[in-house]
Parts: sequence; C-alpha cells; structure tokens
Amino acid sequence: MNAIFRLINPRSVAVIGASADPAKTSGRPVAYLRKHGFEGAIYPVNPKVDAIAGLKCYPDVASLPETPDVGIVLLGAKRAHQAVRELAERGTAAAIVLASGYTETGSEGARRQHELLEAAGKMRILGPNTIGLVNLTRNIPLSASSALEMEHFPRGSIGVVSQSGGIVGSLLSRAAARGIGLSTLVSTSNEVDLDLADFMDFLASDEATRVIALYVETIRNPEKFRVAALKAARAGKPVVAFKVGRSESGARAAVSHTGAMAGADQVYDALFRQTGVIRAERFSDLLDIPAALSTARKLQGKRIAILTSTGGAGTLVSDALGLAKFETPAPDSKTAERLRALETGDHAALDRNPIDVTLAGLEPDLLRGAIRAVLASEQYDALAIIVGSSSLAAPDLMAGAIKDCLPDSDKPVIAYVSPYAPHIVAILNQRGVPAFTEPESCAAALDAMLKMSDVRTLPPSSMRIAPIPIPDFPENALDEAEAKQLFSCFGVSSVREEIVTNIDEAKVAANSLGPKVVLKLLSREITHKSEVGGVAVGVSSDNIAARLHEMHDSVRAATGRAPERYLVQEMVSGGVELILGFHRDPLGSTILLGMGGVTAELFKDTTMRLLPMEGALSVDEAFSMMRELKTWPLLDGYRGQPKADTKALADAIVAFSNMVAQLGGRLVEAEINPLFVLPAGQGVLAADGIAVLNTVATVAG
Amino acid sequence: MNAIFRLINPRSVAVIGASADPAKTSGRPVAYLRKHGFEGAIYPVNPKVDAIAGLKCYPDVASLPETPDVGIVLLGAKRAHQAVRELAERGTAAAIVLASGYTETGSEGARRQHELLEAAGKMRILGPNTIGLVNLTRNIPLSASSALEMEHFPRGSIGVVSQSGGIVGSLLSRAAARGIGLSTLVSTSNEVDLDLADFMDFLASDEATRVIALYVETIRNPEKFRVAALKAARAGKPVVAFKVGRSESGARAAVSHTGAMAGADQVYDALFRQTGVIRAERFSDLLDIPAALSTARKLQGKRIAILTSTGGAGTLVSDALGLAKFETPAPDSKTAERLRALETGDHAALDRNPIDVTLAGLEPDLLRGAIRAVLASEQYDALAIIVGSSSLAAPDLMAGAIKDCLPDSDKPVIAYVSPYAPHIVAILNQRGVPAFTEPESCAAALDAMLKMSDVRTLPPSSMRIAPIPIPDFPENALDEAEAKQLFSCFGVSSVREEIVTNIDEAKVAANSLGPKVVLKLLSREITHKSEVGGVAVGVSSDNIAARLHEMHDSVRAATGRAPERYLVQEMVSGGVELILGFHRDPLGSTILLGMGGVTAELFKDTTMRLLPMEGALSVDEAFSMMRELKTWPLLDGYRGQPKADTKALADAIVAFSNMVAQLGGRLVEAEINPLFVLPAGQGVLAADGIAVLNTVATVAG
Repeated sequence: MNAIFRLINPRSVAVIGASADPAKTSGRPVAYLRKHGFEGAIYPVNPKVDAIAGLKCYPDVASLPETPDVGIVLLGAKRAHQAVRELAERGTAAAIVLASGYTETGSEGARRQHELLEAAGKMRILGPNTIGLVNLTRNIPLSASSALEMEHFPRGSIGVVSQSGGIVGSLLSRAAARGIGLSTLVSTSNEVDLDLADFMDFLASDEATRVIALYVETIRNPEKFRVAALKAARAGKPVVAFKVGRSESGARAAVSHTGAMAGADQVYDALFRQTGVIRAERFSDLLDIPAALSTARKLQGKRIAILTSTGGAGTLVSDALGLAKFETPAPDSKTAERLRALETGDHAALDRNPIDVTLAGLEPDLLRGAIRAVLASEQYDALAIIVGSSSLAAPDLMAGAIKDCLPDSDKPVIAYVSPYAPHIVAILNQRGVPAFTEPESCAAALDAMLKMSDVRTLPPSSMRIAPIPIPDFPENALDEAEAKQLFSCFGVSSVREEIVTNIDEAKVAANSLGPKVVLKLLSREITHKSEVGGVAVGVSSDNIAARLHEMHDSVRAATGRAPERYLVQEMVSGGVELILGFHRDPLGSTILLGMGGVTAELFKDTTMRLLPMEGALSVDEAFSMMRELKTWPLLDGYRGQPKADTKALADAIVAFSNMVAQLGGRLVEAEINPLFVLPAGQGVLAADGIAVLNTVATVAG
Repeated sequence: MNAIFRLINPRSVAVIGASADPAKTSGRPVAYLRKHGFEGAIYPVNPKVDAIAGLKCYPDVASLPETPDVGIVLLGAKRAHQAVRELAERGTAAAIVLASGYTETGSEGARRQHELLEAAGKMRILGPNTIGLVNLTRNIPLSASSALEMEHFPRGSIGVVSQSGGIVGSLLSRAAARGIGLSTLVSTSNEVDLDLADFMDFLASDEATRVIALYVETIRNPEKFRVAALKAARAGKPVVAFKVGRSESGARAAVSHTGAMAGADQVYDALFRQTGVIRAERFSDLLDIPAALSTARKLQGKRIAILTSTGGAGTLVSDALGLAKFETPAPDSKTAERLRALETGDHAALDRNPIDVTLAGLEPDLLRGAIRAVLASEQYDALAIIVGSSSLAAPDLMAGAIKDCLPDSDKPVIAYVSPYAPHIVAILNQRGVPAFTEPESCAAALDAMLKMSDVRTLPPSSMRIAPIPIPDFPENALDEAEAKQLFSCFGVSSVREEIVTNIDEAKVAANSLGPKVVLKLLSREITHKSEVGGVAVGVSSDNIAARLHEMHDSVRAATGRAPERYLVQEMVSGGVELILGFHRDPLGSTILLGMGGVTAELFKDTTMRLLPMEGALSVDEAFSMMRELKTWPLLDGYRGQPKADTKALADAIVAFSNMVAQLGGRLVEAEINPLFVLPAGQGVLAADGIAVLNTVATVAG
C-alpha cells in the first residue's frame, strides 16, 4: 500500500510529544482525533505522562505495541529528527512534523531540515512547519489547527492542498460556514519530502475527490507538478490554483533584456494554462470556483438567465456577468409565455432578463414553475437565482424550490444571496446549488465552469521534431549574422543581408539590396548596437559611405574600439513587428511571444509558454499564443489591413521552440526582435536577433 | 424647516394603507416604527380598521389630529396619487410612495408617475417604488424592508443613498453583521422628485454623517449631483459610489466615430473623478471603503506594516497590497530592535514584513508592545493586523490590544480576519478598526484612504476665458480646412496647408510645403476620406499630378461625384499622435483625449473629462488627463526619446474645451485626429479634424 494513501487513511496514529492539556497545541491532535471519532488506534507518546484522555501513553516509539501508519511529531525543531528516526526505524509509513525553525529561519534551520530528511530514510515526511492534514471523508484529523474545534466537518468532494498551514485553517472554517464540502485538506508547508504535486497526484485518483484546490506559494518541482496536473485533467478532475507572490513578479524579472517584460508570475500563468489548471484570481475564488465545479454540471455556453424577486440585486449580478463577457438575453417568446402563465403578479417583469417575479412570485409553486420554464428554455445555458432580503424570514423557500427542480436539467444553477444570510448560503451549497455573496464571485464561478469545457479538450501542446544538424558556432555571444544563421537552421528565415568591411563593399551591397537599406554594426561584443550609434535605417546607396563613416566614428567614440564589420540589410515594410524570445525560469525554459513597438511594450503585450517536456510547442499552441495577445487583431486584418501570415508565424514559433528544446542547456540566451510577420503567404523575417551559446551544456534543458 | 430634514427627522408619521397584520408588507412600517422605539406620533390610516397594535387608526388623511411631517403611502399604484394629494393638501412635508408599477413598467406607468408628481404639488416625494428610508441615528425606520426585523440598528457615521430598494436591505443586513455603523439609509428608486443628489446634499451637512455611500444606477440630474458632491468634498466628507451598468457601456457608445472608444461608463468615471467621488470597483467595496474612511484617520503614504501571528495570511495580504502598489518595507533597525526586545518567541520573524510574532506572540502585553513599536516607526504610514484562526478561541485578544493602542497614533490601523469569524469582524469594526475578510478589500480600503488625501487638494478643474470672436461658418459639417480654422480661432494650431483645385496649384503648393506632402480630398460631404481613396501620404512634387489624377478617379468611382477641391499639407514627423475630441453624453459635454495609432486604439487608451459648469478645463486638469493615459510615457520622453511639448498640449486641451464651452449647443461634433504633439518647445499641430455646427443652438451646453 502506497505511503501517501496510508498517511491519509491511517489505521493507527502515534502522537509523539502529545500533551495531556488539550488547550496546548501539543494537546490538540489527540483531542481532535477523539472528538471527531477516529476509529483506528491512537498512541500518545510522552515519557512524562501515563495516560492522555484515557488512552495509554507510551514513553517512546520503541515501546509502541505496533508500527503506526503515521507518526505526528509535536516536538520542537531540536528534537524532531530523533523522533523521525525512531519512527522510520519502526517502519512507519509517514511522519507529520509540525515544528517550525527550519529553512524558513535561515541556514541553521536549513541544516536541521536536511537532518530531518536523512533521519527519515525511506519513510515519507509531511512538513516540517506543517499544520498537518485532515481526511474529512473518513473523519481523520491529523492536525493541530484550531479550526478543528468545529463540531462537524463540512464533508464533500473538494480536495485542498495548501503550502501554508494558516490558510488551511482559514479555508476549513470558511468552507464549513458556507456549507462547502471538502474531501481532504493537506498543508505541505516546507515540503522537505512530500509536496503539492504528490498530493495532487493522490487526489487525482481519490474516489472522494472531484475537484482539487491548491494554495500555491512556489512550485519546487515543476515537472512533477505538470505530470500530476495532467493526470488530474485526464481523470476529469478540475484543478483550481491560487498563487501568492504575484506582486513580487517585478523583482524576479527575466534575465534577457526584453524578456524582462515577462515576470516569473507570468510563467505560472503559462504552467497553469498548459496543464489545464484554472487560476483563481482572488483568494475567495479558491473556495467559490471549486464549489461551482464540484456540482459536475457543465456550462455549454455564455447565455445566463437571472431569476429574481428583487430588481437591484438582479441588476448587480447581470452587470457582473456582463463584465465577464456573459450574455443575459431576454426570454424567447415561448419561455416568456410559460412564465406569464404562472401569474406571478401585476408588476412582474417576465419578458426581460433579469426575470423579475417580484415579491408576489415568492411562492413555492410559482418559483418551481419559473425555474423549470427557464431551465427548459433553449435560450439559456445556465440559471442564476437571486435570493433577496425577503428570504430572511423563509430561508428554505428558494432553496427548496431549486432543489426540487435540479433533477429536471443538467444545466448549472447558481445562487446569489443578497442580504447577510450565512445559513441560507449553507443550505444552498449543501443542496448542490453553489451560492455566492458577491456578484463578482458568480461571474468567476461561471467563467471557471466555461473554462473547464476547454480543459477537457486541451489541444496537443507539443510535437516531436527530428534532430536538426547545425554547424559549429563560437562560444558565448554570437554576432547578429550568426544568430540569424542559427535561427534559420531551425527554420526561421531572416532578412537578406550582407557582411561588409569597407565602403566599397557597402555600396555594392546597398545597390543589390534595394533603394534603401539598413546599415548596422556587426559585433559579438556589442549587443546594444543602437545605444552606440551602430544602427542606421533607410540609408540610400548614395549616402551609405557617409553613414558608414559616421557610424565608425560614433562607435569608436562610445566603445573605444573601431568597428571592423558591418551588416547591410534589406528594409522590410508592411509587416507586423513581434518579439520571439527564450527565457530560462526556475519553472523551466519558456518561449515568449510579444507584440513589438513601444506602445505594445508599454502595455506589456506578451504571452508565454513553458517548453513542453516532450519536445517543441505544437502549431495549435503557437496559434493559441498569438490569439492571447491583446493586439492579435493587428495580425488578423485589423481595420481593412491585410491578414498577416499567421501560419508562417506559427511555424516560426514551433521552430524557435524546437531550437530551445534541441539545444537544451547549451542555449543561454536567444531572442528575435523584431520578427516581421508579412501579409499572408509572404512568410516571416527575422530582422535582428541575439543568441548566446555554451559549447558544453551546463544546465539541464 | 427644510422638507428633507423633516422627512428624515419627522416628529409624526402617517401610514396610509397600514395593515394590522405585521407579516404583510403593509403591516411592517407601523410594526418597525414601534419595534425600534420611534418617539413621535404614529397615525395609521385605514378605513377598515379601528386600531393597529394599540394605535388609533384613522379612516382618512383628513381625519388626522395634526398634519404629519411624513406620510408613508402603502397603497397600490392605482390609488397612491389620491393619498398623495390628500397629504399635500394637509401640508405634509413629504410622502414616501412604496408602490411599484410606474416608469419601470412602461408608458402607462410613466403616466401614473407624472400624475403622482402633479398630485404632490409643493410636497416632496420619495419614490415611488422605494423601500423607504431609515434614520439610524434617531431610530426612525420609515421603511418596509424586512431587513428591519433586526433587533438593533448598526448605528454609525456612514450615510447611504441607494437607487435600489433591495440593495438597501442588503447593505443594512451586511453592515449590521459586520459591525459597520450607518447614520441614514435612503432608497430613492424612481426619483420622481427627490433624488440621489438631494440626499447627498442633506448628508453633506448632517452632523451624524462622516462618509457618504452611493449605490448608483443612473444620475438623472448631473449638475445637481456635481454641486452636491462638491459640497460634500468641501465639508471634508468622502463620497464613495458604486455604479452598476458598467457592462452596458458598449451599447451606449458615443456618437462620434472615434468617440465610440469611450463608452458612457467612462463619463461616470470622469464625473466621479472631477467631483472627488471615490468609485467602488466591487459591490463589497461599497461598505468596506466607507468603513475605512469613517475612522477619519489619514493615510499619508504607501508604506504598510503587516503584523501577523500566522505566515500564510500575512503573505496573502502583503501580496494583495503589493498588487495595489503599496510598499511593505522591512522594519528599520530601531523598530526591529524594539520588537526583538519583546521576546515573542524563538521563530518570530521580526526583521521582515509581514512581521510575524508567531503563536507565541499572541499575548496581550506582547501584542500591545508590537503594535506600539510599529505605529511609532517612521518607516510606516499604516498598520494592517492579521487575525488568525488561533483567535477563534480568544476573539477579544487582538481587538483589545489594538483598541488599547489606537489612541497612541493617528495612523490608520486595519485588520484582516483570516478564519470565518463574523463576531471578531464586528468587534473590531465597532472598536474603530476597519476589519476585512478578503485581502483585496484591505487593498481597496487603503487605496481609498490614500485617494482621500488627494480629494482634499483637488486642483482647480476649470478656468474662465473671455469670449473669442469667430467668423461665420456654414451650417452642418465643415470641411477639413474650415474645421481646423475653427480650432485655430480658439488657439489650436494646424499643419500648414493650401487649398488647390487643379494640378498646377497642387504643384506650387507641394513645392512650397516641403519635399513630401499629404494630398487630401477636401469636402464637406465626405468625412471618411481615406475610405474613398481621398488621402495620399508622402507625395513628392514630382508625382503630385499623377496622385491627384488617381484620387480624382478613385473618389468619383466611390462616390459618383468628382472632387472639386483638394488640400495639400506639410508632412509632420517626429511627434506623438493623439486624438482630441468632443462628445455629448447624457451626463454632459465631454472632452476626450486618446493616444492615436492602431495599437493604442486596441487598448482603448483614452481618458475623459466633463466640461466644467463654469467654463473651460483648467491647465491642471489637462495635465491630469495626459498623465492618466497608459501611454503617457510616450509623451514624457520614453526610452531616450525627446519629451513632447506637453505644455502646448495642455494649452490645446484647454483651448478645445473652451471652444466646446463657448459654442454650447451650436457644436454638434468636433474632433482633432491626429493631433501631433511635437518635441518640447515646438508645439502641437492639428493634422486632420472634423466639426459640425448648428447655426442655432438647439441643445443646452
């Protein structure tokens, strides 16, 4: 039996350092196990006490009558490793270490944490610095969280993994208050051994779990995360993640000079997107979205009916849904007729949406009739019901009517509760109707339901390409011509150009490359050519001699060295300028696509993908990157402009990502900027670029 | 005594159509008046009943023993106007009409609503279709909202005016649950007479009110709103508004062809900004922000200390604050030393922010010491305290410590409550510590506190300019040259240009206007010149003849009419392209400034101001518009480019707005697109524009 399974479903639990005082943190785990009716064996271990709450207390791990499945270690950081060693020696499946004072406190703590791992040997560790876990499905609390003071667990189908212990308490108490049911709740914290991905993997095959919610601070093993997330997706279990650290993104800016436009947080976006993980934007979404997804009802479109008895709140929800690009069309004539037949009152608004039955319509038969009419309508993909202040006196009225009608349809039904009425929210959630107290939460939940239908049909995100032979390149930075030669080996074509060393050669090149050309300094050392006067655009052959002289002097003045080589390039016009770059992030190698030009730069109009584990990005993925750019219309024929050659751009993105995949750790830096995308059928052209290579791969791809 | 004052502070209330059954809507007002201890006279009026709840019941208004200050009319829409007439005849100050069935139901309802107004004569009306009002300060509920079932009102200093009755119930019950105190709560709904602005004006001079919260559906009288909002600002009372209908902005797009980029919702933004009203982005902000502002503590900067006993929630709040551009610097060495001296425990993190005292630090003396140390530090402008799950067992611990320390400092102190703990939230709010349950709410509240310091120093937004004489212009659309002539009368200069009618004239003009020129069709009828081939850019004098021929043929083919006149213009290069436009909105005349070019257009990079009531926009206001553009850096010398002539741009904005002000209803349409802003010192140049004039003013300016 798998150690993680035994950790979450133990038949016996040893509590090392248990206190007889249930008010102390070290007294809580035994107290909670008993309070919530754990049916297995509980072995408190404490040499100073004989019994705790009627349970025999053992002096040490060696004295235990059997090998426990799990050991909860409540000792401080200075002694925890000893208990871990003893548990490991007895063959315990897993230890939960609550002590703090490890990596989070500095180098001495890091040493202790390493000691803990060594002491564990083959035994698995949850923690340290964890608040533990709770298996709500089987009433097994292995935790000291004071949120467990509650009488009954909110049992359900949402599995939660959190990298913070305090957040576990917050989510548990909030879920309980709202009637949102959880299956298992784990705090992984320092993750010396077991991490987020291990538990996501477990929950993906856990029968009690239908949706997985993650509170993420950092992903320590991105590959494992990707594998586990894709396993959950294949199992049809949505994964919802809330990640903190978004505002530190600036500080962790990319190394490459324009890659700096995309911070590391954007890489998390890419990771989540590529693995079908739904990103929760607000902390409250981390319960709201799973609550909606746990109904397993599928949202097939964007047309939402709003049924209300109070105009104000209906408008509020309608507005929030509209901002999230949902539609709230008026009922079709057949549905309006069915609604009118209910005779809900003089001033009911039944031909509009929100459909307002008014206070007069708050009667069980009328409500059922209205709900059934709307659910049966082909006009709507989902129903949002408003619960108004009038329900305070009859909390069950709306919930009862909805519950009666739910079996008639498989469309999503959600509720917005307008007054402060936590008991109504709880009743609705418990009856399978996700209920929200913020209009924006209704929109976030429906949005996630819509996204889930996409996840089930994730396009192939990677493709394998046979290795491409490339010539020898010098070590370190390539010059611009070499960089473009490298890109073209993989299939990204460049502007026509010639390397020249003197005025005569420059004139010949200028004459052959068109009426006007670009003249550039060519150098492996100087990457920021324009800053030293090393770029001249729109030069005619008549004045190329003068411009070359000028450039020579300017570069020499700025760098102290006279340039020896220049590049004469054709001028490109009529295309859309993009940036295509590579950037190495702690989460993996990334491919960045961005719109070029200063305006797009100010709007940070970029998108990113992690290099797939299996090879290059697929053509589908390349197209999905383009469509994510806010300036995608510029590629798609904006305002009568010709459509750009997006097919060639997709091929270039695939080719560039294949280069990154094939070169692996040998590639240090690479960027094409600008990449001109010409009108459809005319291809793309790299007009400038940089590349830095190691001769030997020093970093894993 | 003012009628609105009497409406909100009545000494006597007649309830027309009162029912003896307190469960009925028509039974509630009398029941609530008694339940909450109204001290004045209550006169139920109902010919079918002798007494209600021990109160003598009168058969009609005429029989009342005195003239009531207020009449609550509970009759249906078909009879309400009769009661209104009777109340008016008795000299009642104001009637509250609850019936629905008026403008919200169509033309017959609109007729009834007009009838109501006529019946009222000099008496003021609140409603119809209102749920009434509640004076919480003096325990006077004049409402049928079932939210009034509560035992005690949450009394405080926030005055609420809502255009929806249902929202009043929602806000009242939510405020009560959270311990947020209100002064007066009014639902204005159909606003046949008294509107949002009337009550804002009242609350601006109401002693019990410190902050005004508005729930806005539409502003029917923008000028009155502006006057009332500015009165509140002068009184130092922040106004916070949440407005629905944001997603309908697309449908209410502007009339002018590029003005369509700015929807009507953006005009509300402008109105709120120009009157110092803080716009609540989310519905929950409508209580959260006033709760923070009602403490009257001023936030002087962006540096926030976060004090926590639990790492996870501290990080969460830190992240939310960071996203909102707040800073969370580590404690200075002196403060860190003071914190360390408290000896809060081994693993406390006292040299970072969040400052984590850990569970060991949850002791009253330690907490007080830590709070005092942070409040005394010059490093911080405000303190955010995290209340963790551990507080569930000791709800008063943190609240007590904070309360003890509040008098020591005038810096803002807010709290984030991590577990579900409404009682702790209420305790904190009641003790003057705004407490929030969402990390994003902490950021929204602090952000509003920061904005309030700006409001108190609103720059002069308007300036008066002496009338400018202008020549006669034709009626209807002007041609491009005339439009620019009009703009230049007011002080916006244009590119040099000449009107030509044949090839010879065109050649002469081209030679005089530079090596390359722009050739355009000149017409009053054809405004979309480029769509009919009527614009040629970069034309040299050599080929102006050919281009003119081509244009002639193209325009004739497209429009069936041969062009008679052309415009030859100088080419402008090196400037930043903007759009400066005028747009008439239901809220007033607006001035739109937008970045030109397709990329900026895709990002809808525009900003707007309402034309001031007193004249043109001020230079300060013009600068503040520029700085709101996301592409402002392009004007401010981005990436080594020269700074643009923002002073000349500000003058152009002022001049354009002065034109709009002076022409008033005579101006139908006006837009400069593009307006080139040249490098500093070189001015601005209108390169194209449209203007449409009426000879007679038909619309009020």
